[in-house]
Amino acid sequence: MMSNVVFDVYLHEFRAMLYVSRKEHFNAAHKLYNPTWSAEKNMEVFGPCANENWHGHNFDLIVTIKGMPDPETGFVVDLKRLSTMIRREVVDKLDHKNLNLDVDFMKDKLASCENLVIEIWKILSQNLPAVTRTGQLHSIRLYETPRNYVEYFGE
Amino acid sequence: MMSNVVFDVYLHEFRAMLYVSRKEHFNAAHKLYNPTWSAEKNMEVFGPCANENWHGHNFDLIVTIKGMPDPETGFVVDLKRLSTMIRREVVDKLDHKNLNLDVDFMKDKLASCENLVIEIWKILSQNLPAVTRTGQLHSIRLYETPRNYVEYFGE
Amino acid sequence: MMSNVVFDVYLHEFRAMLYVSRKEHFNAAHKLYNPTWSAEKNMEVFGPCANENWHGHNFDLIVTIKGMPDPETGFVVDLKRLSTMIRREVVDKLDHKNLNLDVDFMKDKLASCENLVIEIWKILSQNLPAVTRTGQLHSIRLYETPRNYVEYFGE
Amino acid sequence: MMSNVVFDVYLHEFRAMLYVSRKEHFNAAHKLYNPTWSAEKNMEVFGPCANENWHGHNFDLIVTIKGMPDPETGFVVDLKRLSTMIRREVVDKLDHKNLNLDVDFMKDKLASCENLVIEIWKILSQNLPAVTRTGQLHSIRLYETPRNYVEYFGE
Amino acid sequence: MMSNVVFDVYLHEFRAMLYVSRKEHFNAAHKLYNPTWSAEKNMEVFGPCANENWHGHNFDLIVTIKGMPDPETGFVVDLKRLSTMIRREVVDKLDHKNLNLDVDFMKDKLASCENLVIEIWKILSQNLPAVTRTGQLHSIRLYETPRNYVEYFGE
Amino acid sequence: MMSNVVFDVYLHEFRAMLYVSRKEHFNAAHKLYNPTWSAEKNMEVFGPCANENWHGHNFDLIVTIKGMPDPETGFVVDLKRLSTMIRREVVDKLDHKNLNLDVDFMKDKLASCENLVIEIWKILSQNLPAVTRTGQLHSIRLYETPRNYVEYFGE
Repeated sequence: MMSNVVFDVYLHEFRAMLYVSRKEHFNAAHKLYNPTWSAEKNMEVFGPCANENWHGHNFDLIVTIKGMPDPETGFVVDLKRLSTMIRREVVDKLDHKNLNLDVDFMKDKLASCENLVIEIWKILSQNLPAVTRTGQLHSIRLYETPRNYVEYFGE
Repeated sequence: MMSNVVFDVYLHEFRAMLYVSRKEHFNAAHKLYNPTWSAEKNMEVFGPCANENWHGHNFDLIVTIKGMPDPETGFVVDLKRLSTMIRREVVDKLDHKNLNLDVDFMKDKLASCENLVIEIWKILSQNLPAVTRTGQLHSIRLYETPRNYVEYFGE
Repeated sequence: MMSNVVFDVYLHEFRAMLYVSRKEHFNAAHKLYNPTWSAEKNMEVFGPCANENWHGHNFDLIVTIKGMPDPETGFVVDLKRLSTMIRREVVDKLDHKNLNLDVDFMKDKLASCENLVIEIWKILSQNLPAVTRTGQLHSIRLYETPRNYVEYFGE
Repeated sequence: MMSNVVFDVYLHEFRAMLYVSRKEHFNAAHKLYNPTWSAEKNMEVFGPCANENWHGHNFDLIVTIKGMPDPETGFVVDLKRLSTMIRREVVDKLDHKNLNLDVDFMKDKLASCENLVIEIWKILSQNLPAVTRTGQLHSIRLYETPRNYVEYFGE
Repeated sequence: MMSNVVFDVYLHEFRAMLYVSRKEHFNAAHKLYNPTWSAEKNMEVFGPCANENWHGHNFDLIVTIKGMPDPETGFVVDLKRLSTMIRREVVDKLDHKNLNLDVDFMKDKLASCENLVIEIWKILSQNLPAVTRTGQLHSIRLYETPRNYVEYFGE
Repeated sequence: MMSNVVFDVYLHEFRAMLYVSRKEHFNAAHKLYNPTWSAEKNMEVFGPCANENWHGHNFDLIVTIKGMPDPETGFVVDLKRLSTMIRREVVDKLDHKNLNLDVDFMKDKLASCENLVIEIWKILSQNLPAVTRTGQLHSIRLYETPRNYVEYFGE
């Protein structure tokens, strides 16, 4: 139906910067608590988020990769492979976990959305080259609730 | 612009059964754990939901009231008053809490969505007469995640 | 690819009660105001919903038709024709309008979601036979906001 | 923290009818086409849905199970096991497929949402006993788009 | 569980630019109307949006703050305090109001989404220093409907 | 109620860069297939997306226009006219179609979200001057599913 020559040329001529995003989710417990403060000061600053017995959220995580499409596949990144990597390296370590107690990469850190998004950036930027030759990590957006979210561009 | 007589008659002639719903939300931690079982059996049955250090969710709660409108207001229930009552009696006791440890009405109960919805029914059916003369509690729907939810009709 | 005989028999044997739904939307202004009361009493009962200069909403309307599929088309109702009818008879009369001032079928009625849903029922049940031989109006759900909605089953 | 006796009694006293729902999704191509008609009549009745080269949708499938909780687990059905069964028996046979050409249980049937929901009902009701002792299939809701959906209660 | 020394150092070493967002909502009536034009020209240009008796929307407002986290709290801005300020300074002045008639800061202005977003920017940028030492107003996004929105970055 | 002079001056003084967005949708079938490869290699690289009998999606398309408001209307672009143009030039050519077979501007191209977004950019940037004097095409975001999307800024 189409000439291989035309198709092939089309792909090699292609120069466009695209932003490709994948959304994943996980459920976790946490509390906001600064151990250098008294319990009273924690409650004063963090309010109910400092509840000593924890609370939790359904987190939504959007990962955006920036790059030019691969000439052979038209992909900046294969979203199936990206999803598998995000789940293995990030989601499986956070889902149905306690962010303060169960997660190696959050040890000794305030278990806030802000800190979490930075640690996820470090992990994904290390693991991204294995799933894309041309794409770079552009941004990570983490929804703690549908009304509160944090975004990070690696700067 | 309209005759009071016509308006008044309209309201008093009115006989229709309506279902009025209000959505609230809260964030909480929990785990699924049967204390009459070993830790191993809990993990086998409940999987990651039994994680000893808890996990959590953003819960969405939809409360539906059934009734004929009040002739003077056209309301089955004033949704503002209903919302205030749900928040005071239910949401404030669950939001940013641990369902297993912090909630009086979940004491000695499996902290599952199924049990939670039944306990919320008991509380709301007791408190509803204070906010509506004509409405009855029809159903409670509780979303644990956007993909998992439980509904109860009081039967 | 398939035998016409088999296909034809399948359709005629078919006996199943299905509920088919279509969602439409409109934007409108209104206020809640009982003209037999003083302005003070209206404000006391209806609060900010009685603001004399109006407020407004993006309304979502879900219409559900119940019936057995037509043997020849497999349709309870052609959703394209249903949508066209709902828009012509209901949405076009409400969209970008003032529910208290601009809408014939809301004249002399409290412009509440409860009353609106009943008037929409009357209109749709009259117009439905023109778009389906086998379907009946089952329910109308009207969202005033994503958190407040009213449902009516015609009883 | 809680007495096993109290906990155990609570579970065995429990009598409540609950409706537990799980949402899955799949992407598929289809066309609406009655092979006993001419191409012209198909286009006249089904419009663009009869496009001979197909079109497609992201389908959302909500399965609702009705039952009393199991005394030992508090579950009507383990949603993890329900999800695994729905994916194996239904979603994997529909996802990234052509409903008219690739799906055994849709052979010789109009590939409509209405027919699809009935065939899914047959499959799930056969496979449900393997994942719940106490639950029964209550309803299946299938969204073809966020604005068009069909629901079936097995009657 | 963690050494205060480690925790403290972590916070002080922290240098990352984060974008933190909060979503609020309000319901309001308005019309698009240029008083220097005839009624006919208004209707010709603005169509049903110029309906003299108003129409309305459920508006969603997303406010994004940019900054480096405070070393002691890990917050760019306390979202609870941000939310309280947005509600007091903006939402309470718009919710259940008429944008053309009831809102001081929209006086003598076309009551469009475009103008509203600019006025909200002015208000929030003045009030932001009271709730964050390190954060700056980055953007305001205003949804008039789920399908129409305007974004402003203060430039 | 307001002085024409004040109103007029306000509009002419206005200098702000706004980003106005409109969301449209369409349903289509496609497959990912590189005709210079064997069927086996296509299946290996594209997996179920290469299913020879096609699959499909409900696509959501968000078009963002950047510009300063027109002094007379307060519009960067009339969203009604923008919507009409997007539907005529893009949506009507894609809705209920097969992206590989039915769409002129996708001929000889991999029918991926990445390529589609670039072709839509070309069409919209040509047609935009007819609907806005001051606005420029800023970005196009295309959702293939609620969890996978591609964005393009024309670079």
